[in-house]
Amino acid sequence: MINAATKLIGLLGYPLNYTLSPRMQNAAFARLKLDYFFFPIEVKENKLAGVLTGIRNMNFAGFNVTKPHKVRILEHLDELDPLAEKIGSVNTVVIDDGRLIGYNTDGIGFIRALLEKSPPQLGSSDFFIMGAGGASRALCHVLAGQGVRRLYIVDKHNEASMSLTGALNESSAGIAIYVAYEDAVSFARCLSQCAVLVNATGIGMEPHLGDSPMDARFLRKDLFVCDIVYNPPKTKLLCDAQALGCATMNGVRMAVHQGARAFALWTGAPEPVDIMNDTINEILSIKLQ
Amino acid sequence: MINAATKLIGLLGYPLNYTLSPRMQNAAFARLKLDYFFFPIEVKENKLAGVLTGIRNMNFAGFNVTKPHKVRILEHLDELDPLAEKIGSVNTVVIDDGRLIGYNTDGIGFIRALLEKSPPQLGSSDFFIMGAGGASRALCHVLAGQGVRRLYIVDKHNEASMSLTGALNESSAGIAIYVAYEDAVSFARCLSQCAVLVNATGIGMEPHLGDSPMDARFLRKDLFVCDIVYNPPKTKLLCDAQALGCATMNGVRMAVHQGARAFALWTGAPEPVDIMNDTINEILSIKLQ
Repeated sequence: MINAATKLIGLLGYPLNYTLSPRMQNAAFARLKLDYFFFPIEVKENKLAGVLTGIRNMNFAGFNVTKPHKVRILEHLDELDPLAEKIGSVNTVVIDDGRLIGYNTDGIGFIRALLEKSPPQLGSSDFFIMGAGGASRALCHVLAGQGVRRLYIVDKHNEASMSLTGALNESSAGIAIYVAYEDAVSFARCLSQCAVLVNATGIGMEPHLGDSPMDARFLRKDLFVCDIVYNPPKTKLLCDAQALGCATMNGVRMAVHQGARAFALWTGAPEPVDIMNDTINEILSIKLQ
Repeated sequence: MINAATKLIGLLGYPLNYTLSPRMQNAAFARLKLDYFFFPIEVKENKLAGVLTGIRNMNFAGFNVTKPHKVRILEHLDELDPLAEKIGSVNTVVIDDGRLIGYNTDGIGFIRALLEKSPPQLGSSDFFIMGAGGASRALCHVLAGQGVRRLYIVDKHNEASMSLTGALNESSAGIAIYVAYEDAVSFARCLSQCAVLVNATGIGMEPHLGDSPMDARFLRKDLFVCDIVYNPPKTKLLCDAQALGCATMNGVRMAVHQGARAFALWTGAPEPVDIMNDTINEILSIKLQ
C-alpha cells in the first residue's frame, strides 16, 4: 500500500494509453518488496517544465521519458550519462539528491534482445534501419559501438536520417549510410546488402495500427526482421515477414530489457528481467485471446 | 490498475507517516469502481508552490491538505467556498477545469460525528475547545453555525485563541469566550460551565503520543469528551475521561465524515461513509491487536 515513504517513479509522455510499463514495473516492485510506485503522467508539449517542477518537489526517485519528450528533456537535466549524451535522447532519469541524471536504456534493451535472439554473426553484418527518431538514434549508436559493419538509415524526414548518419560517422567513420526516402532504387539496393531490417518507427502501433513501414515486396526470406513495437506483439511488418519465412523479433524483449535496466538504475537492485518478461507476456497473451 | 486516464488525488502535508486517508479513500474508489488514485505527498513548508505547479500540470482531480499547509494553501487557490473562507483554512481542494477551488470538510465531519453520537441537547450547550489551530477554527465556525450556546477557547498561543474568538464573535456576537492559557482559575471556572470538552489539538497523537492536553483532575464525570485524534483511537485524554465514567467520542467518525465529504466533492458520487468507516476501523483494530 502506498504511503508517505513510497518512492514515486513516473512515465512522462503523450499519449500513454497503450503503455504496459506501469504493469511491468509495479509487478517487479511488488515481487521484490521494494517500496516504489510507478505511474503514467501524460504530459503535452507545453506542460513539461511544470510537471518537472512538481517531480523535483515530490518524493520521486526518477522517471521514464517517452514520446514526445525524449530530446527536449535534455535541457532540464543536471547531468547526462555519456551514452545518453552521444545518443542525444533520454528515456530514463534518476533523481539523486535532487539532481536529475539522464540515461538511455533503449539501445541497450535492443542489443540485449538481439543478442539473445539472433545468430551471432548478425552482430557484425549490415543493418537497414527504418526511422531516425529517438529510438533509432539509441539503437544505432549502441549497434555502432557493438561493431556492426554498416547501418543504412532511412526516414521520411530526410534531414533526420542525414543528421543521424552524420553523428554516427563522427564516432565511427563510414559506418552509417544515408538512404533518401523517395529514392526507391537506392532503397532496394541498400536493403539487398543487409542481413537485418529494423523498424525503429512507431508505424504498426496505435495510431498507425495495421500499417507497415515497408512494402512487403521489398522483403526477402533471409532477412532477420526486427520491430521495436511491442504492442501489438505482431505488427503488419512481422506478419508480412513471417509469411515469407523470415526470422523475426518483436519489441517485447527490448521493452523488458530497457525497463529492467531502468529499474536497476532507480533501485540499485538487480535487473528483474524474468518478472518483467512474465508480466508483459501475460498481459499481451490476454489481449490476444 | 493505474493508467494514463486515472485521476490522481493527493494528500499534501508534513509529516504524513501516520495518515490513514490513502487506505480509506482508495478502498472507496476501488469498491465503487471509480478510476481515481489517492496518495500522500509530503510537502515541507518551502515546497508547496513547486508541488502545486506539478499538480496543476498532471492529471489531478483534487487533493486534501493537512498540517502545516491548511492556511497558506489559500493564497494559491483560484476560488474559495464561503464556509472555508469564513474558517480561513482549507482541507480539500477540487480541481475543476484547471481552477483550484478550496473547501473545508473538517467542521462538517466533526458536527456529523457529534450529532450521531451525542444526546440531542448537547448541540445547544456550552463547549470547551482546546486548540485554536486549523481544525479548531473549522469545528468552532461550524458549531457556531449550529446554534451552540457558547464556545470557550484556549490555546497555548493566546493570540491564536484571541483571534479565533474575535472572528467567531464577528458573525455571532458573544458566542465565543477567550480563555487565557496560563490562568488556571479562569480555566477551571469556564470548564465547569461546559457540557462538552473538545481536544482540537494534535496532543495525544505522534509526536505527542501518550500526552493529554488536559490535566485529568479538571475532568468531570458528566462531561462529554471529544478528541479529534483518531490514531490512536484511544488517546490519553479519552482514557482519563473513560476512567472517570465520561461519555467520549474519538476522531474516527470525524475522519470518516470529512473524508467521505471530500470524496463526494472530487467525484460527484454519494459519500461512501460505510466503506470508509469499515476500512478505518479494520486498520485500527489490526493495529491494536
